[in-house]
Amino acid sequence: MDTDVRRRAFLKASLASAAAFAWRPASLRALDAPQPPQATRIRFAAIGLNHSHLNGQIAAVTRGGGELVSFFGKEADLAAAFAKRYPSAKLARSEREILEDPSIQLVVSAAIPNERAPLGIEVMRHGKDFMVDKPGTTTLEQLTEVRRVQAETKRIYSVLIERHEHKGTTKAVELVKAGAIGKVIQTVSLGPHRMNPESRPPWFFKRAQYGGILCDLASHHVDQFVFFTGSTEVDIVASQVGNVHHPQYAELEDFGDVMLRGNGGLGYVRVDWFTPGGLGVFGDGRLTILGTDGYIEIRKSIDIAGRPGDSHLFLVDDKSPRYIDCRDVALPYGERLVDDVLNRTETANAQQQTFLAMDVALRAEKDARRV
Amino acid sequence: MDTDVRRRAFLKASLASAAAFAWRPASLRALDAPQPPQATRIRFAAIGLNHSHLNGQIAAVTRGGGELVSFFGKEADLAAAFAKRYPSAKLARSEREILEDPSIQLVVSAAIPNERAPLGIEVMRHGKDFMVDKPGTTTLEQLTEVRRVQAETKRIYSVLIERHEHKGTTKAVELVKAGAIGKVIQTVSLGPHRMNPESRPPWFFKRAQYGGILCDLASHHVDQFVFFTGSTEVDIVASQVGNVHHPQYAELEDFGDVMLRGNGGLGYVRVDWFTPGGLGVFGDGRLTILGTDGYIEIRKSIDIAGRPGDSHLFLVDDKSPRYIDCRDVALPYGERLVDDVLNRTETANAQQQTFLAMDVALRAEKDARRV
Repeated sequence: MDTDVRRRAFLKASLASAAAFAWRPASLRALDAPQPPQATRIRFAAIGLNHSHLNGQIAAVTRGGGELVSFFGKEADLAAAFAKRYPSAKLARSEREILEDPSIQLVVSAAIPNERAPLGIEVMRHGKDFMVDKPGTTTLEQLTEVRRVQAETKRIYSVLIERHEHKGTTKAVELVKAGAIGKVIQTVSLGPHRMNPESRPPWFFKRAQYGGILCDLASHHVDQFVFFTGSTEVDIVASQVGNVHHPQYAELEDFGDVMLRGNGGLGYVRVDWFTPGGLGVFGDGRLTILGTDGYIEIRKSIDIAGRPGDSHLFLVDDKSPRYIDCRDVALPYGERLVDDVLNRTETANAQQQTFLAMDVALRAEKDARRV
Repeated sequence: MDTDVRRRAFLKASLASAAAFAWRPASLRALDAPQPPQATRIRFAAIGLNHSHLNGQIAAVTRGGGELVSFFGKEADLAAAFAKRYPSAKLARSEREILEDPSIQLVVSAAIPNERAPLGIEVMRHGKDFMVDKPGTTTLEQLTEVRRVQAETKRIYSVLIERHEHKGTTKAVELVKAGAIGKVIQTVSLGPHRMNPESRPPWFFKRAQYGGILCDLASHHVDQFVFFTGSTEVDIVASQVGNVHHPQYAELEDFGDVMLRGNGGLGYVRVDWFTPGGLGVFGDGRLTILGTDGYIEIRKSIDIAGRPGDSHLFLVDDKSPRYIDCRDVALPYGERLVDDVLNRTETANAQQQTFLAMDVALRAEKDARRV
């Protein structure tokens, strides 16, 4: 498929209704749903329109009290599609116009992954906070520079990772904090995804641009491992990546896994691009959190041949196995991020925890054995 | 708890009805259920009565056409309990009496794990076949000797592993062979178990006797990895064992995991003794088989907060996710083993595959990092 055909397919997906985004986390689709936003508390802009995750990012900030005032994307077709979806936002003439607008406090981005860190660094140097799609960086060198500039500028470099946007995982955070399963021993995450190659832009297939499967897909799962074990130091026990069944895409990694050992607990993550066509959603993501006094399983997007809907949480403890309905769980990330922008706090996520999760995923990717 | 108290608790469990064996695989309980046995085709005996898994072993051979004619256990109390359960079998005066009985073609054993290989070697040297509870050996040195004697004597050294006795797993064998999920890429096995320390005999807590958690519990999962990937050579990418929450049992390993890489596919196994009291069964064992064209999940003993019963299989392919009822799946192991005894074939399990799975579990255990 040539670049133009692929771009048209991608654009078509970008413009379509939420139902078309079956390959996006179901929870991001939930974020797209109308929810009463707060009164405007900050003005924000979007730069880098390359992944439709951007819609979930904008929805989160809007819910939290942000007003999307302007945007810029260097690809004219993506900018046109964005303008159609967000008619009240103004197309800026350049990145610079947004960076130099003193009324804008936060920039969100779903640029091509390897272009995110350089952009975020510019954003922070212009005194603004940054919220980016995962992966937040694609190399350890980028991360080092991001860390340096973040420390200098004291701006926020936030990654909108699955944990922030998923009701079941948010419920698990509450349960684990309340001691429902005792001390966390280990997490196991399975993150299969559907590839839908025809809908993917060219950068999706270029290793230097997407960063590798552990950097990209596993970022969610590594974040959950870091968060639920409370680890502040993490060893990569072993990691593997490979292209086991897609020889037509030379730089694609369609499988990756990693065994982790933190100072707060252990972890295993497997990610892949092998969701079969019949699943109905982008992937049957699972998280199992093993504790000393019980365990939690989250069926993130689907309960196969089971309950309808997404975001299923199961808790087993000394009493019984039980299903916990997460439909009414509030997702606090957007509001907390806007709070943080206003108050210079870290309530949405601790900055060093964000960096640690990025670092672990990047090291796992870099040191992975080929399978 | 002193040895006598623990032995009494263990005996009580051994004598009780199947419902008491919540910590045994549910499928073994299924094997205990009355099923029409074949007409007697071979005579067999039991030596080593230390684990109640022996009841499942006897049931399998009986169903396959074996007649239990005699038994020996050096512990008088275990022998008395056995005699009560199997009144038609004769208590032999010694191992030797059984070994030297030319009418006995097969010996089954659930001796203390580190005593199984020496017994099996004697059994084979006496021209008989051997079927043993897992783990079939507890050290690589034992396995080397077992392999040598098996090659010399051409006798059968069979391990009654979960795959042989579980309806869902048996159904998965059929589906994978039929190409239902394409080529197998990877297996993920979670094997949590309930410890019930008060019911455990002293050897359960002695590392040299039970062999370690990867040797013992993970043997099932390593076997499933070897079988479903069709691997004939396997690297241990990384393995870990530890006692993370039971300081009162110094030699217990309550957690273990291993990442595997075979010439037929990849694998990950986690085992532990952290099944919480409220689960209702011994453990929420899972097997996920990822293929190029779909995947299978087996919920081996329970579908938590879901369908009643055990042995739940889910298949997702290009058509849809669906639940497959495995209640009527036949378990062919017992009949095939008796066939093999009579015909000198390997229809129950290829001998070298049995040895490979044992070898992988033992290497994983030996090389494991402590956590």
